[in-house]
Amino acid sequence: MADARRAVVLLSGGLDSATALAVARADGFECHALSVAYGQRHGAELDAAARVARHLGAASHKVVRVELEAIGGSALTDPAIPVPEAPAPGIPVTYVPARNTLLLALALGWAEVLGAWDIYVGVNAVDFSGYPDCRPAFVEAFEALANVATKAAVEGRGRFRIHAPLIELGKAEIIRLGARLGVDYGLTVSCYQADAGGRACGRCDACRLRREGFAAAGVPDPTPYRDPA
Amino acid sequence: MADARRAVVLLSGGLDSATALAVARADGFECHALSVAYGQRHGAELDAAARVARHLGAASHKVVRVELEAIGGSALTDPAIPVPEAPAPGIPVTYVPARNTLLLALALGWAEVLGAWDIYVGVNAVDFSGYPDCRPAFVEAFEALANVATKAAVEGRGRFRIHAPLIELGKAEIIRLGARLGVDYGLTVSCYQADAGGRACGRCDACRLRREGFAAAGVPDPTPYRDPA
Repeated sequence: MADARRAVVLLSGGLDSATALAVARADGFECHALSVAYGQRHGAELDAAARVARHLGAASHKVVRVELEAIGGSALTDPAIPVPEAPAPGIPVTYVPARNTLLLALALGWAEVLGAWDIYVGVNAVDFSGYPDCRPAFVEAFEALANVATKAAVEGRGRFRIHAPLIELGKAEIIRLGARLGVDYGLTVSCYQADAGGRACGRCDACRLRREGFAAAGVPDPTPYRDPA
Repeated sequence: MADARRAVVLLSGGLDSATALAVARADGFECHALSVAYGQRHGAELDAAARVARHLGAASHKVVRVELEAIGGSALTDPAIPVPEAPAPGIPVTYVPARNTLLLALALGWAEVLGAWDIYVGVNAVDFSGYPDCRPAFVEAFEALANVATKAAVEGRGRFRIHAPLIELGKAEIIRLGARLGVDYGLTVSCYQADAGGRACGRCDACRLRREGFAAAGVPDPTPYRDPA
Protein backbone atom coordinates (compact mmCIF):
# COMPACT_ATOMS: atom_id res chain seq x y z
CA MET A 1 0.00 0.00 0.00
CA ALA A 2 1.26 3.42 -0.88
CA ASP A 3 1.18 6.09 1.80
CA ALA A 4 -1.75 8.49 1.65
CA ARG A 5 -1.10 11.30 -0.77
CA ARG A 6 -0.45 14.62 0.89
CA ALA A 7 -2.39 17.83 0.42
CA VAL A 8 -1.82 21.36 1.69
CA VAL A 9 -5.02 23.00 2.93
CA LEU A 10 -5.24 26.76 3.49
CA LEU A 11 -6.92 27.18 6.87
CA SER A 12 -8.00 30.62 8.06
CA GLY A 13 -9.97 29.54 11.09
CA GLY A 14 -13.25 30.43 9.38
CA LEU A 15 -16.18 28.31 8.33
CA ASP A 16 -15.29 27.87 4.66
CA SER A 17 -11.70 26.70 5.06
CA ALA A 18 -12.71 24.30 7.87
CA THR A 19 -15.14 22.74 5.41
CA ALA A 20 -12.44 22.58 2.72
CA LEU A 21 -10.21 20.70 5.18
CA ALA A 22 -13.02 18.22 5.91
CA VAL A 23 -13.47 17.68 2.15
CA ALA A 24 -9.73 17.10 1.64
CA ARG A 25 -9.75 14.52 4.42
CA ALA A 26 -12.83 12.85 2.93
CA ASP A 27 -10.99 12.78 -0.43
CA GLY A 28 -8.38 10.59 1.27
CA PHE A 29 -5.50 13.01 1.66
CA GLU A 30 -3.02 13.31 4.51
CA CYS A 31 -3.74 16.98 5.24
CA HIS A 32 -1.16 19.65 6.09
CA ALA A 33 -2.89 22.83 7.20
CA LEU A 34 -1.37 26.24 6.47
CA SER A 35 -2.45 29.45 8.17
CA VAL A 36 -1.01 32.81 7.28
CA ALA A 37 -0.70 35.57 9.88
CA TYR A 38 -0.94 38.57 7.57
CA GLY A 39 -1.69 41.37 9.99
CA GLN A 40 -5.32 40.51 10.58
CA ARG A 41 -7.03 42.69 13.14
CA HIS A 42 -7.25 39.84 15.64
CA GLY A 43 -5.49 36.61 16.50
CA ALA A 44 -8.76 34.83 17.33
CA GLU A 45 -8.97 33.32 13.87
CA LEU A 46 -5.46 31.85 14.12
CA ASP A 47 -6.40 30.26 17.46
CA ALA A 48 -9.50 28.89 15.73
CA ALA A 49 -7.36 27.50 12.89
CA ALA A 50 -5.23 25.56 15.39
CA ARG A 51 -8.36 24.13 17.04
CA VAL A 52 -9.90 23.17 13.68
CA ALA A 53 -6.67 21.51 12.47
CA ARG A 54 -6.62 19.30 15.58
CA HIS A 55 -10.36 18.60 15.42
CA LEU A 56 -10.20 17.49 11.77
CA GLY A 57 -7.06 15.38 12.15
CA ALA A 58 -4.56 17.43 10.13
CA ALA A 59 -1.15 15.72 10.03
CA SER A 60 0.49 19.10 10.68
CA HIS A 61 -0.43 22.78 11.04
CA LYS A 62 1.94 25.60 10.20
CA VAL A 63 1.50 29.35 10.71
CA VAL A 64 3.58 31.61 8.47
CA ARG A 65 3.88 35.32 9.31
CA VAL A 66 3.64 37.80 6.42
CA GLU A 67 3.85 41.48 7.23
CA LEU A 68 1.00 42.45 4.89
CA GLU A 69 0.03 45.42 7.05
CA ALA A 70 3.18 47.07 5.60
CA ILE A 71 1.25 47.24 2.33
CA GLY A 72 -2.22 48.02 3.75
CA GLY A 73 -5.05 48.94 1.44
CA SER A 74 -7.76 46.94 3.23
CA ALA A 75 -10.01 47.23 6.24
CA LEU A 76 -8.56 43.88 7.32
CA THR A 77 -4.93 45.02 7.37
CA ASP A 78 -5.12 48.80 7.94
CA PRO A 79 -6.66 49.96 11.25
CA ALA A 80 -7.43 53.34 9.63
CA ILE A 81 -10.05 51.73 7.34
CA PRO A 82 -13.21 50.78 9.28
CA VAL A 83 -14.90 47.40 8.75
CA PRO A 84 -18.28 48.04 7.09
CA GLU A 85 -21.42 46.98 8.90
CA ALA A 86 -23.87 47.44 6.02
CA PRO A 87 -23.82 45.96 2.52
CA ALA A 88 -22.39 48.34 -0.12
CA PRO A 89 -22.24 48.02 -3.90
CA GLY A 90 -19.07 46.78 -5.60
CA ILE A 91 -16.04 45.04 -4.14
CA PRO A 92 -15.90 45.89 -0.40
CA VAL A 93 -13.06 47.51 1.54
CA THR A 94 -12.43 44.17 3.25
CA TYR A 95 -10.84 43.05 -0.04
CA VAL A 96 -7.09 42.55 0.65
CA PRO A 97 -5.05 43.32 -2.48
CA ALA A 98 -3.64 40.11 -3.98
CA ARG A 99 -4.34 38.15 -0.78
CA ASN A 100 -5.33 34.82 -2.29
CA THR A 101 -2.45 35.01 -4.77
CA LEU A 102 -0.13 35.38 -1.81
CA LEU A 103 -1.79 32.61 0.25
CA LEU A 104 -1.65 30.18 -2.66
CA ALA A 105 1.99 31.09 -3.36
CA LEU A 106 2.88 30.09 0.20
CA ALA A 107 0.80 26.92 -0.07
CA LEU A 108 2.53 26.09 -3.35
CA GLY A 109 5.98 26.54 -1.82
CA TRP A 110 5.12 24.31 1.12
CA ALA A 111 3.50 21.72 -1.15
CA GLU A 112 6.70 21.52 -3.17
CA VAL A 113 8.74 20.98 0.00
CA LEU A 114 6.31 18.28 1.24
CA GLY A 115 6.09 16.50 -2.11
CA ALA A 116 2.35 17.29 -2.29
CA TRP A 117 0.59 18.02 -5.60
CA ASP A 118 -2.81 18.99 -4.22
CA ILE A 119 -3.77 22.29 -2.63
CA TYR A 120 -7.21 22.96 -1.13
CA VAL A 121 -8.62 26.43 -0.73
CA GLY A 122 -12.05 27.33 0.65
CA VAL A 123 -12.92 30.16 -1.74
CA ASN A 124 -16.46 30.40 -3.01
CA ALA A 125 -17.90 32.50 -5.76
CA VAL A 126 -21.50 32.75 -4.56
CA ASP A 127 -21.33 34.48 -1.18
CA PHE A 128 -17.88 35.81 -1.95
CA SER A 129 -18.64 39.49 -1.23
CA GLY A 130 -17.41 40.28 -4.76
CA TYR A 131 -13.75 39.35 -4.20
CA PRO A 132 -12.09 38.80 -7.61
CA ASP A 133 -9.67 36.21 -6.23
CA CYS A 134 -12.49 33.87 -5.23
CA ARG A 135 -13.71 33.17 -8.78
CA PRO A 136 -13.10 30.07 -10.94
CA ALA A 137 -11.05 32.14 -13.42
CA PHE A 138 -8.64 33.02 -10.63
CA VAL A 139 -8.26 29.42 -9.46
CA GLU A 140 -7.63 28.25 -13.02
CA ALA A 141 -5.04 30.98 -13.63
CA PHE A 142 -3.22 30.08 -10.42
CA GLU A 143 -3.16 26.39 -11.31
CA ALA A 144 -1.65 27.25 -14.70
CA LEU A 145 0.96 29.41 -12.97
CA ALA A 146 1.83 26.69 -10.43
CA ASN A 147 2.67 24.29 -13.21
CA VAL A 148 5.23 26.59 -14.83
CA ALA A 149 6.56 28.20 -11.61
CA THR A 150 7.96 25.20 -9.78
CA LYS A 151 10.91 22.85 -10.01
CA ALA A 152 8.69 19.84 -9.26
CA ALA A 153 6.32 20.53 -12.17
CA VAL A 154 8.97 21.69 -14.66
CA GLU A 155 10.98 18.52 -14.05
CA GLY A 156 7.86 16.59 -15.07
CA ARG A 157 7.38 14.76 -11.77
CA GLY A 158 3.68 15.62 -11.59
CA ARG A 159 1.08 18.32 -11.94
CA PHE A 160 -0.24 20.65 -9.25
CA ARG A 161 -3.96 20.81 -8.76
CA ILE A 162 -5.79 23.61 -6.97
CA HIS A 163 -8.98 22.26 -5.42
CA ALA A 164 -11.72 24.76 -4.64
CA PRO A 165 -14.49 22.36 -3.58
CA LEU A 166 -16.78 25.13 -2.30
CA ILE A 167 -16.50 27.46 -5.26
CA GLU A 168 -20.01 26.85 -6.60
CA LEU A 169 -21.70 26.52 -3.20
CA GLY A 170 -23.72 29.06 -1.25
CA LYS A 171 -23.17 29.45 2.50
CA ALA A 172 -26.08 27.17 3.42
CA GLU A 173 -24.81 24.42 1.11
CA ILE A 174 -21.32 24.74 2.59
CA ILE A 175 -22.73 24.39 6.11
CA ARG A 176 -24.79 21.34 5.16
CA LEU A 177 -21.74 19.74 3.50
CA GLY A 178 -19.53 20.40 6.53
CA ALA A 179 -22.19 19.20 8.96
CA ARG A 180 -22.37 15.88 7.03
CA LEU A 181 -18.56 15.61 7.25
CA GLY A 182 -18.56 16.19 10.99
CA VAL A 183 -17.24 19.76 11.17
CA ASP A 184 -17.84 21.42 14.56
CA TYR A 185 -18.51 24.98 13.42
CA GLY A 186 -18.48 26.15 17.02
CA LEU A 187 -14.67 26.01 16.73
CA THR A 188 -14.55 28.42 13.78
CA VAL A 189 -14.44 32.22 13.70
CA SER A 190 -15.76 34.12 10.68
CA CYS A 191 -16.23 37.63 12.12
CA TYR A 192 -14.00 40.40 10.71
CA GLN A 193 -13.78 41.95 14.18
CA ALA A 194 -14.04 39.08 16.66
CA ASP A 195 -12.77 39.80 20.18
CA ALA A 196 -9.77 38.04 21.72
CA GLY A 197 -11.99 35.22 22.92
CA GLY A 198 -13.30 34.63 19.40
CA ARG A 199 -16.76 36.11 20.04
CA ALA A 200 -18.36 37.58 16.92
CA CYS A 201 -19.75 41.10 16.44
CA GLY A 202 -22.87 39.82 14.67
CA ARG A 203 -22.97 42.90 12.43
CA CYS A 204 -20.18 42.76 9.79
CA ASP A 205 -20.61 41.26 6.30
CA ALA A 206 -18.98 37.99 7.37
CA CYS A 207 -21.28 37.63 10.41
CA ARG A 208 -24.36 38.44 8.36
CA LEU A 209 -23.54 35.83 5.68
CA ARG A 210 -22.74 33.23 8.30
CA ARG A 211 -25.91 33.81 10.35
CA GLU A 212 -28.09 33.70 7.24
CA GLY A 213 -26.28 30.52 6.13
CA PHE A 214 -27.07 28.61 9.30
CA ALA A 215 -30.70 29.74 9.15
CA ALA A 216 -31.05 28.70 5.50
CA ALA A 217 -29.30 25.37 6.11
CA GLY A 218 -31.58 24.55 9.01
CA VAL A 219 -28.52 23.92 11.20
CA PRO A 220 -28.33 25.47 14.69
CA ASP A 221 -25.88 28.41 14.73
CA PRO A 222 -23.16 27.63 17.32
CA THR A 223 -21.47 31.03 16.94
CA PRO A 224 -20.69 32.84 20.21
CA TYR A 225 -21.88 36.44 19.71
CA ARG A 226 -20.76 39.36 21.90
CA ASP A 227 -24.20 40.99 21.80
CA PRO A 228 -26.80 38.23 21.44
CA ALA A 229 -29.53 39.34 19.02
CA MET B 1 0.87 67.28 -17.66
CA ALA B 2 -0.08 64.05 -15.96
CA ASP B 3 2.03 62.87 -13.06
CA ALA B 4 4.61 60.21 -13.88
CA ARG B 5 3.07 56.75 -13.89
CA ARG B 6 4.07 54.62 -10.95
CA ALA B 7 5.81 51.26 -11.08
CA VAL B 8 6.67 48.75 -8.37
CA VAL B 9 10.18 47.32 -8.77
CA LEU B 10 11.27 44.18 -6.91
CA LEU B 11 14.69 45.00 -5.48
CA SER B 12 16.79 42.28 -3.88
CA GLY B 13 20.01 44.24 -3.48
CA GLY B 14 21.66 42.21 -6.23
CA LEU B 15 22.99 43.19 -9.62
CA ASP B 16 20.01 42.16 -11.73
CA SER B 17 17.27 43.92 -9.79
CA ALA B 18 19.37 47.10 -9.54
CA THR B 19 19.55 47.05 -13.33
CA ALA B 20 15.79 46.48 -13.57
CA LEU B 21 15.24 49.55 -11.36
CA ALA B 22 17.49 51.63 -13.63
CA VAL B 23 15.50 50.44 -16.66
CA ALA B 24 12.17 51.30 -14.99
CA ARG B 25 13.47 54.78 -14.24
CA ALA B 26 14.72 55.17 -17.82
CA ASP B 27 11.25 54.08 -19.00
CA GLY B 28 9.90 57.16 -17.22
CA PHE B 29 8.25 55.59 -14.17
CA GLU B 30 8.08 56.94 -10.63
CA CYS B 31 9.63 53.87 -9.01
CA HIS B 32 8.55 52.26 -5.74
CA ALA B 33 11.07 49.63 -4.69
CA LEU B 34 9.97 46.51 -2.80
CA SER B 35 12.33 44.22 -0.94
CA VAL B 36 11.19 41.06 0.77
CA ALA B 37 12.96 39.74 3.86
CA TYR B 38 12.21 36.05 3.45
CA GLY B 39 14.71 34.46 5.81
CA GLN B 40 17.77 34.93 3.66
CA ARG B 41 20.98 33.82 5.28
CA HIS B 42 22.25 37.39 5.62
CA GLY B 43 20.88 40.90 5.87
CA ALA B 44 23.65 42.35 3.69
CA GLU B 45 21.48 42.20 0.59
CA LEU B 46 18.66 44.15 2.26
CA ASP B 47 21.17 46.85 3.27
CA ALA B 48 22.33 46.85 -0.35
CA ALA B 49 18.73 47.22 -1.56
CA ALA B 50 18.27 50.34 0.59
CA ARG B 51 21.50 51.85 -0.82
CA VAL B 52 20.52 51.02 -4.40
CA ALA B 53 17.00 52.48 -3.97
CA ARG B 54 18.50 55.80 -2.80
CA HIS B 55 21.22 55.78 -5.47
CA LEU B 56 18.72 55.22 -8.30
CA GLY B 57 16.15 57.75 -7.05
CA ALA B 58 13.30 55.45 -6.02
CA ALA B 59 10.31 57.45 -4.75
CA SER B 60 9.95 54.96 -1.89
CA HIS B 61 11.45 51.70 -0.63
CA LYS B 62 9.52 49.18 1.44
CA VAL B 63 10.77 46.00 3.12
CA VAL B 64 8.15 43.33 3.83
CA ARG B 65 8.99 40.43 6.15
CA VAL B 66 7.81 36.95 5.12
CA GLU B 67 8.70 34.05 7.37
CA LEU B 68 9.67 31.76 4.47
CA GLU B 69 12.18 29.87 6.62
CA ALA B 70 9.12 28.26 8.25
CA ILE B 71 8.69 26.42 4.96
CA GLY B 72 12.36 25.80 4.16
CA GLY B 73 13.34 23.57 1.27
CA SER B 74 16.21 25.70 -0.03
CA ALA B 75 19.86 26.35 0.75
CA LEU B 76 18.87 30.03 0.94
CA THR B 77 16.24 29.60 3.65
CA ASP B 78 17.33 26.45 5.54
CA PRO B 79 20.71 26.58 7.32
CA ALA B 80 20.86 22.76 7.21
CA ILE B 81 21.27 22.81 3.39
CA PRO B 82 24.76 24.00 2.38
CA VAL B 83 25.23 26.54 -0.43
CA PRO B 84 26.95 24.75 -3.33
CA GLU B 85 30.36 25.99 -4.48
CA ALA B 86 30.61 23.98 -7.70
CA PRO B 87 28.19 23.79 -10.65
CA ALA B 88 25.88 20.76 -10.54
CA PRO B 89 23.40 19.44 -13.12
CA GLY B 90 19.70 20.33 -12.84
CA ILE B 91 17.96 22.95 -10.79
CA PRO B 92 20.25 23.85 -7.85
CA VAL B 93 19.45 23.65 -4.11
CA THR B 94 19.47 27.45 -4.01
CA TYR B 95 16.06 27.29 -5.73
CA VAL B 96 13.46 28.61 -3.22
CA PRO B 97 10.08 26.90 -3.75
CA ALA B 98 7.57 29.34 -5.28
CA ARG B 99 9.75 32.34 -4.39
CA ASN B 100 9.10 34.51 -7.43
CA THR B 101 5.38 33.73 -7.28
CA LEU B 102 5.40 35.03 -3.71
CA LEU B 103 7.52 38.11 -4.52
CA LEU B 104 5.27 39.05 -7.44
CA ALA B 105 2.15 38.50 -5.31
CA LEU B 106 3.45 41.05 -2.81
CA ALA B 107 4.42 43.44 -5.60
CA LEU B 108 0.96 43.06 -7.11
CA GLY B 109 -0.74 43.83 -3.81
CA TRP B 110 1.36 46.96 -3.30
CA ALA B 111 0.86 48.04 -6.92
CA GLU B 112 -2.90 47.84 -6.42
CA VAL B 113 -2.66 49.99 -3.27
CA LEU B 114 -0.44 52.55 -5.07
CA GLY B 115 -2.55 52.67 -8.23
CA ALA B 116 0.38 51.31 -10.27
CA TRP B 117 -0.13 48.99 -13.25
CA ASP B 118 3.51 48.17 -13.96
CA ILE B 119 5.73 45.77 -12.06
CA TYR B 120 9.42 45.28 -12.84
CA VAL B 121 11.33 42.14 -11.95
CA GLY B 122 14.98 41.41 -12.71
CA VAL B 123 14.66 37.74 -13.64
CA ASN B 124 16.70 36.44 -16.53
CA ALA B 125 16.49 33.17 -18.38
CA VAL B 126 20.07 32.92 -19.64
CA ASP B 127 22.25 32.82 -16.53
CA PHE B 128 19.30 31.84 -14.38
CA SER B 129 20.87 28.74 -12.80
CA GLY B 130 17.90 26.74 -14.07
CA TYR B 131 15.24 28.37 -11.88
CA PRO B 132 11.78 27.64 -13.38
CA ASP B 133 10.34 30.92 -12.10
CA CYS B 134 12.78 33.00 -14.13
CA ARG B 135 11.48 31.93 -17.55
CA PRO B 136 9.22 33.85 -19.96
CA ALA B 137 6.44 31.26 -19.52
CA PHE B 138 6.38 32.05 -15.80
CA VAL B 139 6.23 35.81 -16.32
CA GLU B 140 3.40 35.43 -18.84
CA ALA B 141 1.44 33.14 -16.52
CA PHE B 142 1.80 35.58 -13.64
CA GLU B 143 0.65 38.51 -15.78
CA ALA B 144 -2.45 36.52 -16.77
CA LEU B 145 -3.11 35.75 -13.12
CA ALA B 146 -2.66 39.38 -12.04
CA ASN B 147 -5.37 40.47 -14.43
CA VAL B 148 -8.00 38.12 -12.98
CA ALA B 149 -6.84 38.28 -9.33
CA THR B 150 -7.31 41.95 -8.54
CA LYS B 151 -10.11 44.39 -7.92
CA ALA B 152 -8.37 47.04 -10.03
CA ALA B 153 -8.19 44.83 -13.13
CA VAL B 154 -11.57 43.14 -12.72
CA GLU B 155 -13.26 46.53 -12.44
CA GLY B 156 -11.74 47.34 -15.84
CA ARG B 157 -9.65 50.30 -14.68
CA GLY B 158 -6.53 49.03 -16.44
CA ARG B 159 -4.29 46.09 -17.10
CA PHE B 160 -1.28 44.94 -15.08
CA ARG B 161 1.95 44.44 -16.94
CA ILE B 162 4.89 42.43 -15.61
CA HIS B 163 8.12 43.81 -17.08
CA ALA B 164 11.12 41.49 -17.16
CA PRO B 165 13.54 43.66 -19.14
CA LEU B 166 16.55 41.39 -18.50
CA ILE B 167 14.89 38.10 -19.31
CA GLU B 168 16.75 37.52 -22.60
CA LEU B 169 20.07 39.01 -21.48
CA GLY B 170 23.23 37.28 -20.30
CA LYS B 171 25.12 38.62 -17.28
CA ALA B 172 27.60 40.60 -19.39
CA GLU B 173 24.78 42.25 -21.35
CA ILE B 174 23.00 43.14 -18.10
CA ILE B 175 26.17 44.73 -16.74
CA ARG B 176 26.75 46.73 -19.92
CA LEU B 177 23.10 47.92 -19.88
CA GLY B 178 23.30 48.96 -16.23
CA ALA B 179 26.66 50.68 -16.71
CA ARG B 180 25.13 52.77 -19.53
CA LEU B 181 22.22 53.68 -17.21
CA GLY B 182 24.58 54.76 -14.43
CA VAL B 183 24.23 51.86 -11.99
CA ASP B 184 26.98 51.73 -9.38
CA TYR B 185 27.39 47.97 -9.04
CA GLY B 186 29.72 48.48 -6.09
CA LEU B 187 26.53 49.07 -4.05
CA THR B 188 25.03 45.69 -4.93
CA VAL B 189 25.49 42.27 -3.29
CA SER B 190 25.00 39.06 -5.31
CA CYS B 191 26.78 36.51 -3.12
CA TYR B 192 24.63 33.78 -1.54
CA GLN B 193 26.78 33.91 1.59
CA ALA B 194 28.03 37.48 1.88
CA ASP B 195 29.29 38.55 5.30
CA ALA B 196 27.60 41.24 7.41
CA GLY B 197 29.65 43.93 5.67
CA GLY B 198 28.42 42.75 2.26
CA ARG B 199 31.76 41.17 1.23
CA ALA B 200 31.34 38.28 -1.21
CA CYS B 201 32.69 34.73 -0.87
CA GLY B 202 33.86 34.63 -4.49
CA ARG B 203 33.07 30.92 -4.75
CA CYS B 204 29.28 30.33 -4.89
CA ASP B 205 27.28 30.11 -8.14
CA ALA B 206 26.12 33.72 -7.83
CA CYS B 207 29.69 35.01 -7.32
CA ARG B 208 31.02 32.94 -10.24
CA LEU B 209 28.35 34.23 -12.66
CA ARG B 210 28.88 37.79 -11.50
CA ARG B 211 32.66 37.68 -11.79
CA GLU B 212 32.51 36.11 -15.26
CA GLY B 213 29.93 38.73 -16.26
CA PHE B 214 32.17 41.69 -15.43
CA ALA B 215 35.08 40.05 -17.23
CA ALA B 216 32.99 39.36 -20.36
CA ALA B 217 31.46 42.86 -20.30
CA GLY B 218 34.89 44.49 -20.07
CA VAL B 219 33.72 46.46 -17.04
CA PRO B 220 35.92 46.60 -13.91
CA ASP B 221 34.48 44.36 -11.13
CA PRO B 222 33.78 46.58 -8.08
CA THR B 223 32.77 43.63 -5.85
CA PRO B 224 34.42 43.54 -2.41
CA TYR B 225 35.61 39.92 -1.94
CA ARG B 226 36.52 38.43 1.44
CA ASP B 227 39.42 36.44 -0.03
CA PRO B 228 40.80 38.33 -3.03
CA ALA B 229 41.61 35.88 -5.84
